[in-house]
Order: sequence, then structure tokens, then C-alpha cells
Amino acid sequence: MSLALGVDFGTESARAVLVDCTDGREIGTSVEPYRNGVIDARLPAPDDDVELEPDWALQDPRDYVRSFEGSVRGVLADTGASPDDVAGIGIAFTSCTMLPTLADGTPLCEVDGLRRQPHAWVKLWKHHAAQPEADRINAVAAERGEPWLRRYGGRISSEWFFAKALQILDEAPEVYARAERLVEACDWIVWQLTGIESRTACAAGYKAMWSKRDGFPAADYFAALDPGFAHVVDEKMSRTLLPPGAQAGGLIERIAESTGLRAGTPVAVGNVDFHASVPATTVTAPGSLVMIMGTSNGHLLLGDELMDVEGMCGVVEDGIVPGWFGYEAGQSALGDIFGWFVKTVGSTHEALAAEAESLRPGETGLLALDWWNGNRSVLVDADLRGLLVGMTLATRPSDIYRALIEGAAFGTRVIVDVFERAGLPVDAIVACGGLPDRNPLVMQIFADVTGHEIAVAGSRQAPALGAAMFGAVAAGAAAGGHDSIEAASHAMGHLSGTTYAARPEHRDAYDVLYGEYVRLHDLFGRGGDDIMRRLKRLQIEAAAVAPATA
Amino acid sequence: MSLALGVDFGTESARAVLVDCTDGREIGTSVEPYRNGVIDARLPAPDDDVELEPDWALQDPRDYVRSFEGSVRGVLADTGASPDDVAGIGIAFTSCTMLPTLADGTPLCEVDGLRRQPHAWVKLWKHHAAQPEADRINAVAAERGEPWLRRYGGRISSEWFFAKALQILDEAPEVYARAERLVEACDWIVWQLTGIESRTACAAGYKAMWSKRDGFPAADYFAALDPGFAHVVDEKMSRTLLPPGAQAGGLIERIAESTGLRAGTPVAVGNVDFHASVPATTVTAPGSLVMIMGTSNGHLLLGDELMDVEGMCGVVEDGIVPGWFGYEAGQSALGDIFGWFVKTVGSTHEALAAEAESLRPGETGLLALDWWNGNRSVLVDADLRGLLVGMTLATRPSDIYRALIEGAAFGTRVIVDVFERAGLPVDAIVACGGLPDRNPLVMQIFADVTGHEIAVAGSRQAPALGAAMFGAVAAGAAAGGHDSIEAASHAMGHLSGTTYAARPEHRDAYDVLYGEYVRLHDLFGRGGDDIMRRLKRLQIEAAAVAPATA
Repeated sequence: MSLALGVDFGTESARAVLVDCTDGREIGTSVEPYRNGVIDARLPAPDDDVELEPDWALQDPRDYVRSFEGSVRGVLADTGASPDDVAGIGIAFTSCTMLPTLADGTPLCEVDGLRRQPHAWVKLWKHHAAQPEADRINAVAAERGEPWLRRYGGRISSEWFFAKALQILDEAPEVYARAERLVEACDWIVWQLTGIESRTACAAGYKAMWSKRDGFPAADYFAALDPGFAHVVDEKMSRTLLPPGAQAGGLIERIAESTGLRAGTPVAVGNVDFHASVPATTVTAPGSLVMIMGTSNGHLLLGDELMDVEGMCGVVEDGIVPGWFGYEAGQSALGDIFGWFVKTVGSTHEALAAEAESLRPGETGLLALDWWNGNRSVLVDADLRGLLVGMTLATRPSDIYRALIEGAAFGTRVIVDVFERAGLPVDAIVACGGLPDRNPLVMQIFADVTGHEIAVAGSRQAPALGAAMFGAVAAGAAAGGHDSIEAASHAMGHLSGTTYAARPEHRDAYDVLYGEYVRLHDLFGRGGDDIMRRLKRLQIEAAAVAPATA
Repeated sequence: MSLALGVDFGTESARAVLVDCTDGREIGTSVEPYRNGVIDARLPAPDDDVELEPDWALQDPRDYVRSFEGSVRGVLADTGASPDDVAGIGIAFTSCTMLPTLADGTPLCEVDGLRRQPHAWVKLWKHHAAQPEADRINAVAAERGEPWLRRYGGRISSEWFFAKALQILDEAPEVYARAERLVEACDWIVWQLTGIESRTACAAGYKAMWSKRDGFPAADYFAALDPGFAHVVDEKMSRTLLPPGAQAGGLIERIAESTGLRAGTPVAVGNVDFHASVPATTVTAPGSLVMIMGTSNGHLLLGDELMDVEGMCGVVEDGIVPGWFGYEAGQSALGDIFGWFVKTVGSTHEALAAEAESLRPGETGLLALDWWNGNRSVLVDADLRGLLVGMTLATRPSDIYRALIEGAAFGTRVIVDVFERAGLPVDAIVACGGLPDRNPLVMQIFADVTGHEIAVAGSRQAPALGAAMFGAVAAGAAAGGHDSIEAASHAMGHLSGTTYAARPEHRDAYDVLYGEYVRLHDLFGRGGDDIMRRLKRLQIEAAAVAPATA
């Protein structure tokens, strides 16, 4: 038996999955929460008198190691798998999650005298306090006409690597000075596992403005941000980036002992969770859009050329599957919006969906701009906010619930349209993440609104499965793994068999509503109307077709 | 002892109040619900197989008589008052609530063969099925340049008299033909009490395009609507309109017997509930805006000239207080919106208000257009709908509750601004209706947003008290009443003593938010922005001033 181990580091926990390399069967899973979770109010005890400012979100790097060890021990114990059968290990991780370390990888928050300094900790992906730095990064890049800016939709997010790094320099220059390395968390954990500092092209490409052809931005660009930032790459990072599936090294003895794994087990370079999911959904070539639907929604698509696509989170050669350009777009909230509403009205998804599912397009009289957490693609504007229009005294919670789902689906259709207009066809959609299994109504509305059949991936834990695939590739076929991610995906990836077909009878109404959405989207998202009357007319028309719903 | 009896016919019940003519003390109240309530789904048994179309709202005229009798008997019994002490009777009524009758006042729904015909029943004020007729009334008036249209904000509502009358002609010409009289319900009940058909200038002026100077629109205008409608006024109405406080006649024997009142007791001409409230709040002269705050919000202001004021519901000479022009504006939903939200989130006004009251202007990050039931003033557009913008994943129900209140307050400030720009000063605001006593947070926010101190009227039943005042005037001072509504108001009207002062520290922030509201109001209400960023900034600024609220 040949197995691959994938470990997915999420926002709250690490999840270890053991997968059969021959057929992708997931033989066991173990989840280990982070002891200190998301640190967003105060540092952990005994330093809990140190309060964090709004928008901060930190983590404790020690949690990553502990949760790796705990989850791996758990899955080995649960399955009784032999460590000798584990051909390779792959990592998926939230991103950009980054930390400052010493040259040996020691996190600065573990260095004497720095523990009470928030900037010495891991900045989690949802740390949003580096907006001034992101603004500067964007303004200087625009002023200088930096060519790489176009690959990121014309705007760098405050969540990304150099915004977070520059915030350290701005606010805690002494911490910045002590940081001998600035490193993505996925690369840091691989460093801890292998003893070797390696860097993944995936995170560097999507979050640190690196490209295979042009490398990082030039030193004079960084100097224009801050003279002290000029040599950030050469002083604290690395210009050697490895593609997904490359072997970073073998598992070191200490971790082998603490987990029960075999020392020397091949470990793949780190990977970003969304991107690792793509081969897990069977997609390793252009034409199929992968949606990673959870609290937010990620849209990943492969292409054979570098195209100019509006509002991408990023486009990275070899970033997802070596040999292709990986395009990433996204909606910064999806399940989070529905969850917000369920909490707001004190209901349940099931009850609201039961009432909302029989409504026809337009029958709610409502339209929502799904920007409760800003707009990632295609507007790339975190300051945008939600909008709901069309309420009357007769509007029911289930009407609003449905309108929120429709708004999110319209947001995805905008992304699909932008891909297709740029010359990147979307012939099929595959969905993974936690939402597809939990909320069929969301899936059906996304199919109806986009006009595409949506196939649901077979695994409920696509990032971990994808990480295992890359672990198998790091091992190679000769060692029981696979020689390419295509081969691994072909053998180990699978769909669930559940599909949602677009219902042609809803097409016209959704086309009209989508037109309204795009108009409001452009009005409020791109910088100037009387939509309510038209919505009411659509509602009356829908009511004339459908019987009123109880 | 000299008493006046005021009876207020609301949407669900009639309320009889006995008031001391010397000091306005309310010595007793009795409420009698309408047996058939609001008829909006099917006719009452035994004709309950007759279903009504959407937007219909009817009443049973017999309920008015029954509830008058029941409530008056009740208040006489409760108080032990002598019928000889009742100097006069006044009526307040919802409007436009109208019905077709025979020449003797018999409602057509009581005529053989017409009971199963919905058009033979009373059309309640909130019967909204005459929109096509209102559209025609407006289009033809605009095309002909009818001068009276300006007195009604340029648009006649589907709720009003001729829209409802024309709907009868359009949809049930046989009912229209049988209707020897078309009459406001307030006039009809006075007819039942006195045996004399009289008509009030108030309802005719506000709801039937009549004015003291120009009378009704000309026959050729009505003919342009429908040739059969040309002589509606002369055939089925009256050109004799009496001002509020005029005596319609004396109570007939039969009603005296059924109620215990004295036959011959002077009865004032009918009055509309909102308008009757004005003297009850002590206002009988220009300068003080009366707000009647309940499910909707009415704004009444007196002026000494006929001015052109945008978006009035109407302006009527002698319509409220003889000698003045009475201006009426309104918001078509107020408490209804807050009630909708409480129901939507399954909370209580008290719980939401407790959380919302400590928020500062801008702290919610939200802005609402308060158009859940359309916009009456100043846009006069029933098709407008609610809008809420600025939601994030952190938005709480109490944030939305407060934003809805602020939106309604901004809507009132638009009306105040329009009055003042037209040359009608608003020096003071007096509030009556059910809401001021129940929701202090609403009152405080209205004061803060308008910048005016708001005094709360003394009576919780201002329409009934006002009706009693007009009853006292119909009786006259010699009979124990008063010789003018000014004298009656001076003696019988009172304030509660509760006032809400505008807090100067909230002034600047509300001025900014009001600017945003006006921009969205004009964008969505008048025919073309990026407000969210500014809202976020305001929220951050507010958060920087105020501690976060639990």
C-alpha cells in the first residue's frame, strides 16, 4: 500500500488526511485545533495585557507545529497505517500568512524580548491592518507604471506579503531589523519539517508579486516605498522559488519522532490551500473553473497564455499546475454572508432555504450587492460594502436569504464573464469546499445564474487531498507516488457524482436581474439610478407566473 | 359640566372619547372593533367565496354604525356621563375611505344583488388597486396642464377619491351606474348620524382635488378620463363643502336611542383623522409642524399663503383650521418599518433600542432609504422601495434598527427642508400618534437629525380629541362648547410636558449623513455613486470617538 499525507493548515486548525496514492481513497482524517486560534484582541497569556488594534489578526507559529504533530499522530493512530507506507507529505496553508524569523527559522515572537511585540508574531491572512502600506504599494506602483501590477488586477491587497512586511518596517522598525527572514507560513512549516528553507512559487507568485519570467519587483521600486525596504528580497527572502510538487527535502528526525512518521519521508514544497485544491477536483488543464466555496469563494482557472484579465487576485505561471498559467479570482465573502444573515434573523439555513427554494427569479423583489466583506474580484476594493435594495413591508427573511445567494451568484457570473471576455473559456465548473454539500440551494442558484452545470468535487477536504497529491508527486512514482500532478490527479482526484444543472426556464429572468446587478455593481463599484421600479415589475411578473409561496 | 364627544374611526376600530370642554380632560374612552375589520382576501360570510384581487382593501359600512353605537354606549356607561352634558359630537376618520350609495345613503353593498360585488363595498384608504386609474388621472392632468395638480405635489395617489371612483367605473360600470352618491366615509357616517348629507372641505380638499377658490376640476377634465366620468361631481357628489367645525345637523332619534345620546345633539361635519389632530396638539397657527407618528408619519403645517411646495400630499385652504392654508406631507411608513424589522429578526423594540441608543451617528456604517412603503413626500412615488447600504459581516441587528430610524428621520428632514425653502418656517415640532410614547429612541433621533426640539402632545388619542374639539365648535360657546377651533384648542389642547432636545454634539455627523441620504435619495428617487467608502470612514471616525458598544 502506498499512501500520501496531506496536511491542510486552516484558520482554526490543521487537518491531516491519509490518501491512497493509487485511487485517492481517503483512509483517515484527523483535525487538531490551534491552541491559540486566531489572535485578534490580545496576545496569548501571559502577555494578554497586550491589546491589538482593530483589524489585526495574528497566530502563534508554535501552534502550527503542535497541530501538525497532533493531527498526524491522530491519523496514524486512527488508521493504523504504517509510516513506511507514507510515500510523501504535502502541505496546504492559508495565505498570505507570514512571519518574521531569525536565520535559523526561529519565529521572532519566540526570541527574548520580542514576545510582547505584536509585529513579531504570525500575521494571519485576514490581518487587515496593513491597508496604508497596501495603499502606498499601489500608489507607487501605479506612479512608476510597474508592469507586474496588471497581473494582480491593478491592485495589491492589504492581505498580501509586502503590505504585511512593510507594516512591520513602518510600525516596528526594530522588529523588521531583527527579522533575518520574512517567510510565508506554508514555507515556514516545510522548513520546520525538513530543516531546509524552501520557498513555493505558488505563494510567491500570488501574494508576493513574483513571476517566473520577471522575478520580484526591482530594488528601486522597494526603495521608493521606503529606503529601508530596498533590499527586502535579498536580505530577508529568497529568489529561488520551487514549483508545486517539487521536493523540499526529507522529514527530519525530530518531527519523525514526534509524529510517528518515517524520517526522510519526502516533503513537497508548501502550497496555498485554494490552489492545492485544483488537482483534487480533477482539474489540471484549461477550460474548467474550480470554485472553492466556503466562507469565501475562490475561482481558479488554468490558461496556456498570460492574458490581461480584469481584477484577478493573481496570475502565476506554474502557480497551480506546472506548465500552465494559474488564474485566481475570488469573492471575499460567500458562506459568511449567509451565516451572517442566519445569525441576524435567528433562523437556520435549512428553514430559510426551504422557504426560499420555491421562489422564482425576481420574486423576492430584492437585489443584493454581495460585498459584506468588500469585493475581491473584479473590483479589488476591500472598502466596498453590502447593499440590499427593494425591501417592502411584505419582505420575508427567506426573500432576503435568497437575494443574498443570488447576489453572490451574480458576483461569480461577473468573474466568469471577465474570464471569457479575456479569452479564457469557462466550459465547465467544478465546486469544492464546505458549502456544496451543505447548501444545495446555493449550488442550484449558482448553476441557474451562471448558466453552467456545476459538478461537485468528490472530496470534502480538497486542500488536504490536493496537498497529498503534491506529496505523492514529491515522492515520485518510483517511491509509490506519482511523477506529475496530472498523473496524481488522474489517479487520486474524483468527483462526487452530484451535479447541478442550470434550469433553462430561469435563464431569461436571471439575465435581466443580472443586468440590474451589473448596473448597480458598476454604479457603486466603479464610481452613478431608479432600479426599484424595474424590480417591482419583475416581482409582479414572477408573481403572475408562480403561485404565492406560503 | 359640558362635554364634547369625539369618535375616531381608525383602520380596525372606532374610538369614542368624552372630553371636558373647559379643560380638555379626557373623562373616558371606549373602543369598538369593526366586526369585519379590513376585508382584503375575501368578502365576509356568507359571501366569502368571493375572493379579492391583490392590493384590495375593503370595509363594511355597517361596521361604522355598529362601532359608533358600541363605543358611544361604552363611554357613556363607563363614565356615567349625562347625555345632556354632551354639547357636541365630532368625527375623525381614515381617508380617503369612500363608498358608493343610493340617494338616501344606503350603501350599495346593502342593495339586493350587489352584495357579492366588491366594488359595492367601502374602499378603505389602503386599497391600492386603483393605480392604473391614478396613472391616467396624472397623465391626463399633466397633458392638459391642470393647475390643481401642483397643489398635490404633481401627483395624485391611487388611494384618493377619484382614482377609487374611476376604478369602479372602469371595472364595474354597472355598480358605478347604480351609485347615486359617491361619498367619503367621514361624510357618510355624519349623514347616518344626522340624516343630512353634508360634505367636509377637509377630505374634499386633500383627497378629491377640490379647492375653496377653484372648486373641483372641470367636467372636460373628467370627460377626458372617461366620457362617462364627465359629470361625476354633479351626478354623484356635491359642490357644497363645509369647513371643519361647521355644524352638519343634529343627532337623529334612532341613533340617539341606540346610543343613549340626546337627539338633536349638534354634530360637526366630518374630518380626516390626521387633520383633526392638529388643534389637539395645541397648534392652530403657522410655525409649528405637527407630526402624527404611527405606522406612517403625517406632517401638517399651517400657512397664510398658497405656496408652491414640492411633494405635498395636499394644500387646502380651510382644510385644517379655517382661515389658514393647511399643508400636508407624509412618510408612507414609519412604525411599520421598525415593526417589520423587529418581526424579521425576531427581537423586540426594547431590546434593539437598548443596544442602538448608545451608538453615535455614523457608527452603524449604514444608511437606509426609508421607502419600505414607497415615498409619499416629497417624491410622491409609491413604487419606490427600501434600500440599506453599508452592511459588513459585523453588522448587528441593532445597527440596522438604528439605521432604519435614522433613515426615517432623514426623510422627515427632507420634508422640513422643503417647507422652509418654500417660505413656510418650521419653528417648532409637536408630535402625536402612538409612537412618541412607545419609542423614545425614535423621538430622540428625530430631534437630533432635524435639529429641532420635539414636544410630545398631551393626548394619546389626538384624532379623537381633535374631533371632540370640532364637536364643541359645532355646538358653540352658548351651548357649552366653543365658538372657534382656536378657542377650543386653547381650552382643550395640551402638551404632555415631554420634550426631546436636539443634541448639538450629534449635529455635525448627522449633517454629513444627511448629505449622503439626500444624495442617495436623489440618485434613487429622482432619476445617478461610491458612498460606501465615506460611510466606512464615518464609522471609523465614530468608533474613534465612542467606545465599542457591547
